[in-house]
Amino acid sequence: MRDALVAAAFRLFLERGYEQTTVDDIVALAGVGRRSFFRYFPSKEDVVFPDHERCLAEMTEFLESGPPQDDPVARVCDAARLVLRMYAENPTFSVQRYRLTKRVPGLRAYELSVVWRYERALADHLRTRLTDRRDGTLHADVIAAAVVAAHNNALRSWLRADGEGDADAFVDRALDYVRRTFGTEGPVARTEEGEDVVVLVARRGVPMWRVVKEIESIWTD
Amino acid sequence: MRDALVAAAFRLFLERGYEQTTVDDIVALAGVGRRSFFRYFPSKEDVVFPDHERCLAEMTEFLESGPPQDDPVARVCDAARLVLRMYAENPTFSVQRYRLTKRVPGLRAYELSVVWRYERALADHLRTRLTDRRDGTLHADVIAAAVVAAHNNALRSWLRADGEGDADAFVDRALDYVRRTFGTEGPVARTEEGEDVVVLVARRGVPMWRVVKEIESIWTD
Repeated sequence: MRDALVAAAFRLFLERGYEQTTVDDIVALAGVGRRSFFRYFPSKEDVVFPDHERCLAEMTEFLESGPPQDDPVARVCDAARLVLRMYAENPTFSVQRYRLTKRVPGLRAYELSVVWRYERALADHLRTRLTDRRDGTLHADVIAAAVVAAHNNALRSWLRADGEGDADAFVDRALDYVRRTFGTEGPVARTEEGEDVVVLVARRGVPMWRVVKEIESIWTD
Repeated sequence: MRDALVAAAFRLFLERGYEQTTVDDIVALAGVGRRSFFRYFPSKEDVVFPDHERCLAEMTEFLESGPPQDDPVARVCDAARLVLRMYAENPTFSVQRYRLTKRVPGLRAYELSVVWRYERALADHLRTRLTDRRDGTLHADVIAAAVVAAHNNALRSWLRADGEGDADAFVDRALDYVRRTFGTEGPVARTEEGEDVVVLVARRGVPMWRVVKEIESIWTD
């Protein structure tokens, strides 16, 4: 019944517009009563984003279940991928909703509040993991915001391309940037070359792309 | 008259609560008509945040007026300081509003939409400055989000300390972290050119793209 309500709502939102559709219209089309609607969705906005509560719960569980030796930045990046997966499960629905949300200010505000809850979940996890770091809560907040911004940049690119193409490839590239910028694992931290510096010696005449590749391998291996 | 309306509104919000105060109550206390209220404020939410529109306009102007050779990350950090200055101009009012906003979900949503507009202003500026960079829009979005998160972390610390202490010191420390992480100015990497080899020395923790940029500059000079 939940799925039927979502389907009926979206059919009407696309046909008549979001503002012009009432909860009564939705339940009439779905063939159920008003009480059934409100059993599943507290408001009309909620039917537009039917899976965020589940996804937030999954994210929290995922963050809590990781082994404590995990790189915390990698962990929150993987947690963000759960949101992408929710969108990528149903590209047509996600693209329709993206277009609808862009047009309706009330939905845009709802979406901002959901994004903020994801960001808080990531930041709260990072805070517990970075407590021994000086300015740990500052770093946690900044890294969580960077993860969310990178994820949303990739998600929007994929939605603007009508949900075609490999959503994972978009988000991998975006989150790699965050991990390279903030990540604590990798050979840079383990390297025996110097305490504060990494030294690269390149032969002259070597093509630049090979030097860049070399740099990439020591920075991200 | 605008200031009198804000003062009357806050007196009532603190005495009776935000939800229990109507626009009619506010105009009665201020001794003006409803039309005067709506000339200054589109809604009751807007009277809680009377200076954000001005601050957004100032931020946009500041970003547009900078010399093109400025470090873009430093520029957006300085733009964010304009928001802090607005809060620090009136600590008592800012602390009262902070407590009110935490209690009223509608105001929290309003605040999120304002924060999003600041973040977009910073990201839009960075996008124009990073167009020649691979993944420039991704980097712009992530850096803007990091600046806003750092600023807000500092602002909240200052507000939680009842607006006592040096607000600038809080935000300097937070924004320094962002500049160290993403900034492009200063000698982050140093190169020495011998006859047969090029030696690159990079500080630990410098993002890989900055090292690649350094390599690119010596290979193509």
